[in-house]
Amino acid sequence: SGVRVAILTVSDTVASGTGPDRSGPRAVSVVNSSSEKLGGAKVITTAVVPDEVPSIKALLERWSDVDKMDLILTLGGTGFSPRDVTPEATKEVIHKETPGLLHIMMQESLKVTPFAVLSRSAAGIRGSTLIINMPGNPNAVAECMEALLPSLKHALKQIKGDKMEKHHKHI
Amino acid sequence: SGVRVAILTVSDTVASGTGPDRSGPRAVSVVNSSSEKLGGAKVITTAVVPDEVPSIKALLERWSDVDKMDLILTLGGTGFSPRDVTPEATKEVIHKETPGLLHIMMQESLKVTPFAVLSRSAAGIRGSTLIINMPGNPNAVAECMEALLPSLKHALKQIKGDKMEKHHKHI
Amino acid sequence: SGVRVAILTVSDTVASGTGPDRSGPRAVSVVNSSSEKLGGAKVITTAVVPDEVPSIKALLERWSDVDKMDLILTLGGTGFSPRDVTPEATKEVIHKETPGLLHIMMQESLKVTPFAVLSRSAAGIRGSTLIINMPGNPNAVAECMEALLPSLKHALKQIKGDKMEKHHKHI
Ligand code: NA
Repeated sequence: SGVRVAILTVSDTVASGTGPDRSGPRAVSVVNSSSEKLGGAKVITTAVVPDEVPSIKALLERWSDVDKMDLILTLGGTGFSPRDVTPEATKEVIHKETPGLLHIMMQESLKVTPFAVLSRSAAGIRGSTLIINMPGNPNAVAECMEALLPSLKHALKQIKGDKMEKHHKHI
Repeated sequence: SGVRVAILTVSDTVASGTGPDRSGPRAVSVVNSSSEKLGGAKVITTAVVPDEVPSIKALLERWSDVDKMDLILTLGGTGFSPRDVTPEATKEVIHKETPGLLHIMMQESLKVTPFAVLSRSAAGIRGSTLIINMPGNPNAVAECMEALLPSLKHALKQIKGDKMEKHHKHI
Repeated sequence: SGVRVAILTVSDTVASGTGPDRSGPRAVSVVNSSSEKLGGAKVITTAVVPDEVPSIKALLERWSDVDKMDLILTLGGTGFSPRDVTPEATKEVIHKETPGLLHIMMQESLKVTPFAVLSRSAAGIRGSTLIINMPGNPNAVAECMEALLPSLKHALKQIKGDKMEKHHKHI
């Protein structure tokens, strides 16, 4: 019955009310417009947290373990600045890494800008939830989703234990 | 002399006798037909284990430490489903990561199918044995080997301590 | 006031005086000729250590924590041979991984030679210092720097906490 998506904006500026959340609404819009290709994806919840490992981890764990989200997208905190810790928080909560998703996001983002290498995104599986870091820039969110679209629906089906999905697609 | 190869099929279905091993024989055939390019590679042993971390680790450790294999290819268990744990088992036994092998397998596989990102393959060195995860799909095995062929012979020589090989190839 | 660069040649041969350091001087020359594009980079110090984890770690830690280098390039010790341990030493000292830098170095090096996959380079941030492993081959140093040039100046600014740099570049 559809893919439950949660979107986490990670930003000191947005969390403190100093600046607007530009990437969150853009991600909601991107997920909604790709809903069918993602197997009926629907954004169930969104939140904003500051660039702090404990805050990020707490939401990733609750959304995975309690709220049973299928897909969590984090936005921001993936850069090289001292406050950028989203990948570190993410690596602490995932059980399995999914390096192919990082590869395709990087490969495709590099076709848009050489600054794509400044994203330190992590991605992986916790229980039956897929967690993917995306950069905070609104355009990067759209570009990353574009890169993932051909495979993401099948990734989400496999996570739920659909072995037939796996065999049918010859992975 | 020559390159001693072991092939491990990781599959609950095959291990339980419920289904045939399609990838194992294909991998043997691929190694044999690439034998010369790999520096005289010969498949010494094959086995099938279920998708269980301890079973996978036990064979990887025995084949590396006791049976002194030069190259171990694992087939399957690299996907996103709950039972897919081959990369996790592999990461627990390797001493050194070899990310370049993963990069070239992913890059080349993506030219064949966008579903290549669903492989979470790991690769690395344990002692003097190179361990590489490949997806369980028989075609994927052939494609991954194709991607590795230009460099694998030299990788295996370097692992054995051939410094001249290293310098000659300007790595 | 410029980018402080340190260059570490990792090589048993060079450290023991058995062979000349070809990659160190080449790296100094590459940094100097790219100085402006790197935001005014200047090589402050160089050193040679054998292929030993403690020796490598000691210099990386001192150059990061005490000497406050902005960028450390290591040369060599990234291959598959038993003595190659530069990535292992590097991973022990970095606080944050920077996988995008590895991706672009690998992607671009693969356009030059399939043997690029034999580099197991690591890269990451320790405090406010960026540490990047490069292969020991002099040409590889130049090729890797070429791959990093479009983004490295911005990476170094971000590490120093320049959030505006981040936002301006839409990362
Ligand atoms: Na690529």
